[in-house]
Amino acid sequence: MEWTERWAETTARVEANLDRLYAKNREPQKRLFESMRYSLLAGGKRLRPFLVYEFCRVCGGSDTQADCAAMAVEMIHTYSLIHDDLPCMDNDDLRRGKPTNHKVFGEAAAVLAGDGLLTDAFFVLTQSELPAEAKAELVKTLSYRAGPYGMVGGQVLDMEAETRACTRSEVLAIQKRKTGALIRAACEMGVICAGGSSEQRSAAGAYADAVGLAFQIRDDVLDAEGDAAVLGKAVGVDENKNTFLKLYGPDYCKRKVRTLTRQAIAALTGFENADALANLASYLATRDR
Amino acid sequence: MEWTERWAETTARVEANLDRLYAKNREPQKRLFESMRYSLLAGGKRLRPFLVYEFCRVCGGSDTQADCAAMAVEMIHTYSLIHDDLPCMDNDDLRRGKPTNHKVFGEAAAVLAGDGLLTDAFFVLTQSELPAEAKAELVKTLSYRAGPYGMVGGQVLDMEAETRACTRSEVLAIQKRKTGALIRAACEMGVICAGGSSEQRSAAGAYADAVGLAFQIRDDVLDAEGDAAVLGKAVGVDENKNTFLKLYGPDYCKRKVRTLTRQAIAALTGFENADALANLASYLATRDR
Repeated sequence: MEWTERWAETTARVEANLDRLYAKNREPQKRLFESMRYSLLAGGKRLRPFLVYEFCRVCGGSDTQADCAAMAVEMIHTYSLIHDDLPCMDNDDLRRGKPTNHKVFGEAAAVLAGDGLLTDAFFVLTQSELPAEAKAELVKTLSYRAGPYGMVGGQVLDMEAETRACTRSEVLAIQKRKTGALIRAACEMGVICAGGSSEQRSAAGAYADAVGLAFQIRDDVLDAEGDAAVLGKAVGVDENKNTFLKLYGPDYCKRKVRTLTRQAIAALTGFENADALANLASYLATRDR
Repeated sequence: MEWTERWAETTARVEANLDRLYAKNREPQKRLFESMRYSLLAGGKRLRPFLVYEFCRVCGGSDTQADCAAMAVEMIHTYSLIHDDLPCMDNDDLRRGKPTNHKVFGEAAAVLAGDGLLTDAFFVLTQSELPAEAKAELVKTLSYRAGPYGMVGGQVLDMEAETRACTRSEVLAIQKRKTGALIRAACEMGVICAGGSSEQRSAAGAYADAVGLAFQIRDDVLDAEGDAAVLGKAVGVDENKNTFLKLYGPDYCKRKVRTLTRQAIAALTGFENADALANLASYLATRDR
C-alpha cells in the first residue's frame, strides 16, 4: 500500500468512529451534540490520528488498539480550533471554507461545544479495551501535552506575544507548546496503545519534535511564498506576526526544515516498517498546501 | 470531632494542595498559572472536595487516597464558574465578592484559564498513588459526569431555557446535569478512591442525587426568601427564571427538601461512621446561606 493510501485509510477510519460517536440525537441536549459534530466532521488533514495509528502499527499494535486514542487527540485538536476562533480570541468567521462554530451556533454554545469535546476526549480514552495501565498513561500523556504545560500554555504565550516582537527562543517556546505538544502526544499515544517500550516512546517523541517544528516552519514559508489557490486559504496573513521566517529568513528556514526532516527519519531506526512515517516527514517538509 | 470541624479540615487540606499545585512561577506561561490560581483560591464552600473525602473515609479509605480526586473535582467546578461568568454566558463581574476572572485577566485569558484547569484536572487524577484501575475509573466518572452527558449538557439546556417557560421535568433535567452531575461525581469518586464496592457506589449515587436536588431547591427558596446580608449575594435575581419555586410553589418545595433529606440519610445505612454526611444533608436543606 502507498503511504498516502494508508493516510486515507486511517482518516476514513477515525472519521467513521467520530461520526458514530454523536450520531444518536441524544435528547434533551441534542443541540450540543449537533454543534460538537459540526466541527468534528468539518474535514481537516487528520494528521494527529494518522500519527497515532502509525506509531501503534510500527510498535506491533493493531488499528483497533489505537482507535480511542486517535479519536481523543482529534477531539482535543477540534476543541482548540473552536475556542481559538472565538471573537475574544482570533475572531475568525471561516475555518476550512465553512462558517466557524460560533457563527453557526452562537458564542456561548461554541464555548460549551469546546468544553464538551475536551471533557469527552478523556471519557473516550477510558472506553478502549486496553489494560487500565495503558488507559491511565494515555490520559496522563494527553492531559499533560494538551493542558497548561503544553497546548493551552502555548495559546497563552502566543496571545501575549501578539503585541510585541519576540526573540527566536520565544518563538520556539510558543511553537513547542502551541502546535508541537499535541503532535508529540499523538506519537507517544500510538506507542502506548501498542504497549511499546520506553525507548520506542522516546524515539516517537524525538520524531514528533522534529516533524512538529518542520511543519510549523513550512507553514510560515507557505504563508509568505505559497499559492492561495493551492493552499485553500489566504496568504500573507502572518506578515506582522512573530514567525520563524521573519526571525530566521527564508534560506535558513529551508535548510532547517531539511535538517529536521533528516532528524525525524533518523529517529525511526528502531521501528519496523516505518516507511509511511518517513514519507510523511518528507512530505510535510515539502508540501505546498 | 464536630462534623463542621471535619468540613473545615478537608477544606484546609484541599486548599493547601491546590495552593501548592501552581505555586511555582513557571515561566514562560506564568500569567496562565496566575489566572488559574486566582479563581482556584478565591474561596467557596469546597462542598465537592468534602464529599470526596467523606465518602472515601466511610468506605475505609484515607484522606491521602482522596487528595487527587478532591483537587480534580474542585478544578472542574472552578473552570465551569470561569466559563459561566464570561460575557457571552452570564456576563458576571463579581463572584464571591471578587472581580471575575475575565475582569482581571481579560476574556481570552479567562477562556484559556478554564481550558487549562479542565485539562489539568485529568492530569492531577493520574498523579495519585492509586492502582491504575482506580485512576481509569476516576477519569471515566469525572469526564462522564462533567462532560456533554452531564454538566456541560446541563449548561446548554439551561442556556436554551432562558428565553422560555419550562415544564417541571425540564427543570429537573437541567438541575440533574448542571449541578447534580458534579455532586454525584464527587460522591462516587470518594468510593472509588477507597476501593469501595459497587453497592457502596450506588448508595453514594443515591445520596448525591437526593442531596443535589435538595441543595438546588433550597437555593431557589433562599433566592426568594433569604436575607441578602446573610447570603452574601443579591436575592430575587431568579425571579424570571425557571426555578423549582416558581413551578412547584414554596410549600411543596419545603416538603420536597425534607423528603429528599430523609432519602439521602437513608442511603447512608451501608456505611460506617457516616454521621458527617447525614449532618451535611440536613444542613444543606435548612441552611440560610
